[in-house]
Amino acid sequence: MPENPVDDDCCTPADGAAMSAGRAAEVAALLKALADPVRLRLVSLIASSRTGEACVCDLNAGFDLTQATVSHHLKVLQTAGVLDREKRGVWAYYRVRPEALAAVADVFSSPSLAGARA
Amino acid sequence: MPENPVDDDCCTPADGAAMSAGRAAEVAALLKALADPVRLRLVSLIASSRTGEACVCDLNAGFDLTQATVSHHLKVLQTAGVLDREKRGVWAYYRVRPEALAAVADVFSSPSLAGARA
Repeated sequence: MPENPVDDDCCTPADGAAMSAGRAAEVAALLKALADPVRLRLVSLIASSRTGEACVCDLNAGFDLTQATVSHHLKVLQTAGVLDREKRGVWAYYRVRPEALAAVADVFSSPSLAGARA
Repeated sequence: MPENPVDDDCCTPADGAAMSAGRAAEVAALLKALADPVRLRLVSLIASSRTGEACVCDLNAGFDLTQATVSHHLKVLQTAGVLDREKRGVWAYYRVRPEALAAVADVFSSPSLAGARA
């Protein structure tokens, strides 16, 4: 038995402003793609490049990793909708999708963490 | 061999505005704690509660999970610095650390994703 009786603030259901289960699954999938140091640096390198895009050769040069490993991380980010990929000649060029980053910023800027975007 | 020679924009090292390896490791650890639908909903429930905090009994009621599982998720969030925990009587009360959420929002609001906070 509790030492203290349950007070008025305890066990009050939260209001309806909390994140829905469906929205939480979407946001979690996006965060999971980003929750890796190499993938964060890849996104940052692409976002900070002069032209707003980077070819896979630029990106391989920045890491002490095999090209296959870098390509795997790029694929995870592309699948999650964080990066767009365009093939031009033999090179694949990657560009950050600003709406994906804005969606994360929006969720964590919301006082209730409910997220403004669908 | 490439069909097209490397153009001027290819293989140019990115500038110094990209995220450092150390910073990427910090941000990735925070995102990893948040990259789970149950943990996102826990944070959202606490953040959206009337008093800005929630006791573990409030939180257990919102999930079809065992109390041990909910407690595990709360512990992960506390360890990552997302939640503060205070024991009062028999109940543990959780509160969101706004600076943790602001740190995530800042990183993803930065055009270069370099992050404004240390």
